[in-house]
Amino acid sequence: MDIGSYTFDEFVQKVCEFHGGPAPGVILGGMIVDMAKRNLSPEYLFDAICETDKCLPDAIQMLTPCKIGNGWMRIINTGRFSVTLYDKHCGDGVRVFVDASKTKAFKDFNDWFACLVPKKEQNRERLMEDIRNHGRDVLTLQRVKVDINALPDKETEEYTICKECNESCLPTDTGVCLACQGRTYTSPANESCGCKGC
Amino acid sequence: MDIGSYTFDEFVQKVCEFHGGPAPGVILGGMIVDMAKRNLSPEYLFDAICETDKCLPDAIQMLTPCKIGNGWMRIINTGRFSVTLYDKHCGDGVRVFVDASKTKAFKDFNDWFACLVPKKEQNRERLMEDIRNHGRDVLTLQRVKVDINALPDKETEEYTICKECNESCLPTDTGVCLACQGRTYTSPANESCGCKGC
Repeated sequence: MDIGSYTFDEFVQKVCEFHGGPAPGVILGGMIVDMAKRNLSPEYLFDAICETDKCLPDAIQMLTPCKIGNGWMRIINTGRFSVTLYDKHCGDGVRVFVDASKTKAFKDFNDWFACLVPKKEQNRERLMEDIRNHGRDVLTLQRVKVDINALPDKETEEYTICKECNESCLPTDTGVCLACQGRTYTSPANESCGCKGC
Repeated sequence: MDIGSYTFDEFVQKVCEFHGGPAPGVILGGMIVDMAKRNLSPEYLFDAICETDKCLPDAIQMLTPCKIGNGWMRIINTGRFSVTLYDKHCGDGVRVFVDASKTKAFKDFNDWFACLVPKKEQNRERLMEDIRNHGRDVLTLQRVKVDINALPDKETEEYTICKECNESCLPTDTGVCLACQGRTYTSPANESCGCKGC
């Protein structure tokens, strides 16, 4: 069965190009997104909720207009491997998730998905065959209503200038941006660290 | 001057395809990413930090291998319109940001960037010309060191099964996943809401 407008093998190739490698999570994610789209009214102008930040967001970005930078995809990280597509006006939609009660039938898939076997000891070839042949068999679809008014606001249009760094930033109570308050991991560069790139 | 391997006009077209429209933030973002890449050692295997969740992440995803789903791009949202590209092993890299001290020279650009004029009253044509002709003039580049050991961990490989929903999820103290604890915005669908899509 195809994934979006791709055959399985074509999609694997597209995953390599976009994601950097044939990650099982993105390939399975393609099946999740595909199932959700096939069960959504074509009249919906839809947004997406992704419940993990691992792999699955890239499948959504590859197969729908919902991207992290246009605000049509939100990541609400509970770790659940699920996608919800819903009409952005009324909130009606579908949620597709990997159903843990269904995965045990497929040993290599289950070893990977439930992290039962260290990555190096997983049989990658059999895992890919499980995904190709049974990826859809481990999914469950729910019809859902998204409480669109309760979603975290994505339309912040307020910006200010930080009193310390003088950059445009999100407003804070103190007038000092979150980075200058400590939410940063960068400092001015000093000498070469000695790595081959310096 | 080109943006990555694209001319300016080609990049605008690519932004329309990926992002859904010719968003000024993604086009300017392309210039930011391009400047960062041109000033980074080609030997670096780099990761990205984006300091806003608006538009700019899509420019990074379009012009680099760093995607939200492969973990090579992190969004640390301070609202600052900046990209840091850094070697993932040693942390050395560059940070490029929109320099508020430079934007005032370009009225239409400044009205848009500093949110001084409501969107409907902005002159979109002149804004695009400002970005095309002066987008690089409002940027500043810093050489930085990223404290890679302090970055929030992205390699969580631990998952468990939630006691309530029975889905695979991030572990919690109670064994009940974050969604079942309330971090969710979806509920089972009931009747049609009356919108055209139902």
